[in-house]
Amino acid sequence: MHLPLKGIIPPLVTPLENYDKLDIQGLNHLIEHLISGGVHGIFILGTNGEAPSLDYRLRKELIKRTCEIVNHRVPLLVGITDTSFSGSVDLAKASNLAGADAVVIAPPFYFPIDQEEVISYFKTLTQVLPLPFYLYNIPSHTKIHMTVDTVKKVKEMGALGIKDSSGDMFYLHSLIETFKSCPEFSIFTGTELFLPETVTSGGHGAVAGGANIFPRLFVRLYEASVAQNIETIACLKEKVMKLYHTVYKISKHPSGITMGIKCTLSVMGICNDYLAPPLHNLNQAERAQVEHVLKKFTDSFNVSL
Amino acid sequence: MHLPLKGIIPPLVTPLENYDKLDIQGLNHLIEHLISGGVHGIFILGTNGEAPSLDYRLRKELIKRTCEIVNHRVPLLVGITDTSFSGSVDLAKASNLAGADAVVIAPPFYFPIDQEEVISYFKTLTQVLPLPFYLYNIPSHTKIHMTVDTVKKVKEMGALGIKDSSGDMFYLHSLIETFKSCPEFSIFTGTELFLPETVTSGGHGAVAGGANIFPRLFVRLYEASVAQNIETIACLKEKVMKLYHTVYKISKHPSGITMGIKCTLSVMGICNDYLAPPLHNLNQAERAQVEHVLKKFTDSFNVSL
Amino acid sequence: MHLPLKGIIPPLVTPLENYDKLDIQGLNHLIEHLISGGVHGIFILGTNGEAPSLDYRLRKELIKRTCEIVNHRVPLLVGITDTSFSGSVDLAKASNLAGADAVVIAPPFYFPIDQEEVISYFKTLTQVLPLPFYLYNIPSHTKIHMTVDTVKKVKEMGALGIKDSSGDMFYLHSLIETFKSCPEFSIFTGTELFLPETVTSGGHGAVAGGANIFPRLFVRLYEASVAQNIETIACLKEKVMKLYHTVYKISKHPSGITMGIKCTLSVMGICNDYLAPPLHNLNQAERAQVEHVLKKFTDSFNVSL
Amino acid sequence: MHLPLKGIIPPLVTPLENYDKLDIQGLNHLIEHLISGGVHGIFILGTNGEAPSLDYRLRKELIKRTCEIVNHRVPLLVGITDTSFSGSVDLAKASNLAGADAVVIAPPFYFPIDQEEVISYFKTLTQVLPLPFYLYNIPSHTKIHMTVDTVKKVKEMGALGIKDSSGDMFYLHSLIETFKSCPEFSIFTGTELFLPETVTSGGHGAVAGGANIFPRLFVRLYEASVAQNIETIACLKEKVMKLYHTVYKISKHPSGITMGIKCTLSVMGICNDYLAPPLHNLNQAERAQVEHVLKKFTDSFNVSL
Repeated sequence: MHLPLKGIIPPLVTPLENYDKLDIQGLNHLIEHLISGGVHGIFILGTNGEAPSLDYRLRKELIKRTCEIVNHRVPLLVGITDTSFSGSVDLAKASNLAGADAVVIAPPFYFPIDQEEVISYFKTLTQVLPLPFYLYNIPSHTKIHMTVDTVKKVKEMGALGIKDSSGDMFYLHSLIETFKSCPEFSIFTGTELFLPETVTSGGHGAVAGGANIFPRLFVRLYEASVAQNIETIACLKEKVMKLYHTVYKISKHPSGITMGIKCTLSVMGICNDYLAPPLHNLNQAERAQVEHVLKKFTDSFNVSL
Repeated sequence: MHLPLKGIIPPLVTPLENYDKLDIQGLNHLIEHLISGGVHGIFILGTNGEAPSLDYRLRKELIKRTCEIVNHRVPLLVGITDTSFSGSVDLAKASNLAGADAVVIAPPFYFPIDQEEVISYFKTLTQVLPLPFYLYNIPSHTKIHMTVDTVKKVKEMGALGIKDSSGDMFYLHSLIETFKSCPEFSIFTGTELFLPETVTSGGHGAVAGGANIFPRLFVRLYEASVAQNIETIACLKEKVMKLYHTVYKISKHPSGITMGIKCTLSVMGICNDYLAPPLHNLNQAERAQVEHVLKKFTDSFNVSL
Repeated sequence: MHLPLKGIIPPLVTPLENYDKLDIQGLNHLIEHLISGGVHGIFILGTNGEAPSLDYRLRKELIKRTCEIVNHRVPLLVGITDTSFSGSVDLAKASNLAGADAVVIAPPFYFPIDQEEVISYFKTLTQVLPLPFYLYNIPSHTKIHMTVDTVKKVKEMGALGIKDSSGDMFYLHSLIETFKSCPEFSIFTGTELFLPETVTSGGHGAVAGGANIFPRLFVRLYEASVAQNIETIACLKEKVMKLYHTVYKISKHPSGITMGIKCTLSVMGICNDYLAPPLHNLNQAERAQVEHVLKKFTDSFNVSL
Repeated sequence: MHLPLKGIIPPLVTPLENYDKLDIQGLNHLIEHLISGGVHGIFILGTNGEAPSLDYRLRKELIKRTCEIVNHRVPLLVGITDTSFSGSVDLAKASNLAGADAVVIAPPFYFPIDQEEVISYFKTLTQVLPLPFYLYNIPSHTKIHMTVDTVKKVKEMGALGIKDSSGDMFYLHSLIETFKSCPEFSIFTGTELFLPETVTSGGHGAVAGGANIFPRLFVRLYEASVAQNIETIACLKEKVMKLYHTVYKISKHPSGITMGIKCTLSVMGICNDYLAPPLHNLNQAERAQVEHVLKKFTDSFNVSL
């Protein structure tokens, strides 16, 4: 794994047959779809990966299977966030054994805790991790927005970078400003729309859920951002905006984005659209909308995606 | 288990030696302390029980051990809330096997979900539960405040009652009003201070964290509330308020109440004060405050508690 | 004005013909309705009084008229909260000239400010007030929940008491605990449901919107609370709860309580139901519900209210 | 006034000698500073203009004076937002009389209200406005985030555009998407950092507080955004970011940006740094920081600003 890690790292959705069983064929398809799309890494067991909804056995099976399929063609990062400390450690060990490149950690998310407690938690956790680690900020789910000072402290513990899904562009700029003298520390946005701004301002890429669907779209947007090619950026960004205005919005439920992505992948024939409870797949009418939208996308993107 | 369940049901703190090991002796002491204090039931693996911080193995061991110790002397309720559906089901099965009386369910707490999704989740879950169940509302931790309509729907699925830890007295009154014609449906407050009002208004009792420390204080306050003895209520409530102004406030961290309770139990010689990450025990200065406070409590309560 | 002020102080709704004109006849009726109902004071230009929706001219006219009508039969308090410092000072002067007994101040409510800024603001304001003053905590409208420490500092500037409309019972108890050694400092709840608990715990009464409708109901509930007569408290509180379940809930809009109160007063023939924009009166169907509810109330309360 | 209005419209800070008196000389200086800096319009009595802290007399004086000084050299917009309906109408009339070009309206901000009530309020208000109007979305201060549907409805009442200060880039993109077929409807961001993205995506400019200090910096950034000159955008945006990392952050109070801007203008010798309560000027140490920062800015910007 070359540092700093950069580019497009899709947060893999987890293809499932039911809440207790992987859709292995779908997993194979999806990973080949991403790698042939040119992604720069893969992140499993994040929010889009429904990690907290899967029990340990299933998560470990996913880690093992994904490592085998990816087979070091791109860096593989594994989310090990859990409310149970020993659960996290156990997943880290499994990741190491299976041959993953790094783990990703967010704060435990049941108890309300403060910055000091997050730092102290990570101090204990990172000491026993067998792999390099990245930090993950997602306050909408964990109830805590890690301050830049907290991130600095976790970087001192060895963090190789951060994925920020706060949707707060000032925070993102503060991170970039704070770590601009640390060339090996990666700053990824989890907000796809912020990808060009992140990269042109000195950040490193995006952990983009939509890249599950259109990996090449995001890879090109990343490359255009690196090249500061404003016409291409504008043109590709408009396509990304279309995802926001269509796929991501079809379900009105709070976690509708993940549900929209899985449905689209199913319509594309890539993997199953089953989601583990409490999430659930789109209904028939919503799926019809996805089919309609996807057709328009394919028409307008034609061969180029 | 006689319906409706009523009285004082302490949410048992989980005595631990470390994040991976029960403090068995402490568990024995604590349970005897509660039963001899006259409690009307015991609830394990709730928020005060640090359930989400314990891995499945440890949770199952706790279920088994507690069932053995309690040995049907009082009803035993087990929290099975988990972000993983299969994890919840598994804990329910373990509870049944071990001989527990009922399980307690709160919404899964990682993904933001809406009322409709909570209902749908519980519809699926409750169909496979081998034991009666109670509902648990704790929006500060789960990010969702179940509406009265949602509670009505879950009651229709068979819920025997609800523990409300929202701290919202209007909500509590709405629950009581809504279910007053359902004599077997229990309404417990998770806010100790609301115990008298809950009971005098038609509710059934409290799941009171402080009852880990002073079970008899809460049992008496319950009895005084049932008897509508206002002088006794006022006198005992003042003592409960002292807990708020002392033990619950010594730690300034967001989950300081649980930390204060465990420290007090440790000072009383009942069980260990270890808390699993991300929580942590009080520091030396804070513990000294607990010692000081406890002495004053003991002096003022003398033999009667 | 005898200190500490205590009992039932209705926050007078402002009878209006339109946004620019008082309903003078309604104002007379309403004040006589309250005084004959036994209230212990009257508070004008609070939230229920729609103060921020009225321009200065109208507010001053209301002050003058109310002072004349009340004519020192009960203490009269005037809300002078405004986003403009000079506006507040001006209203205080008008209150003094007209013969009011005290003014009531909440933080200015447009800019987000912190505790330190609230304290500093009140330090400047209170130095130029020509009348004694009470503090008013209503974070849902002002965006700031004054801490107990802030209240202590404002008390040192001379505050004679506080009305707390936070709906936070722990905060209320903390206030009572903090000021129990200051016998002249009044603690009023703005949450009607908390009246008995406030009084039995050492507080002084309620600024109860519902007392506009049923002054005697609240006065009796206050008296029963002082006398610690639990049967009477329970019986009267049930009637207050009915207001919550009916009048206060008929409109689903966020400020529906004030709208429900004004509509009820109009149905009772006491004053006009016009509300200044952005609030508005209930629609025809909602008014019909109020009529229905009121009839049931009158039947069940008969002569006694 | 040519439609759509576009470019940089600084929200003028209000130069004050004290809470009751304009700093007329400062007002003259500041306006000349802005106009010579090339701004495309001026917006008075917004949030940076401390409108709610000024009483009506002072607001009207400011309207009159500003109109005289600006003298139609650039379009002049006047904020008339107020909690009192008649207050707003009155300010609109004064704006018209004084010769302003348009007024700006945000929802009244004391009572919590919902989207339906905002629409209904604006329906009543806009019917009596003597001037064209723009909408202003600032949920951090008004407690309501107007939905895109609400904005559509207010556009149908005649709104010429919107200033969005929500800081929510998705919302901004939704506005642009929604109104792209309405070429005369202006979309301004109130978040300076979003200026390039707003303009390159189809929006019209920024109401940028920092343009009080460096009008030409923002005008150039606007022009570079129109020209899609990515190098210039990147270079100028870095300078804007410096404002965020310095001037805007020196005060830790919630409204510290306005305080930082006024202090900087005072250090530059343009106008007084007095702010009306509840805001307040920076302290001595903070002012020293501003001086230091400003020197570095001037050095690095040299003649070009």
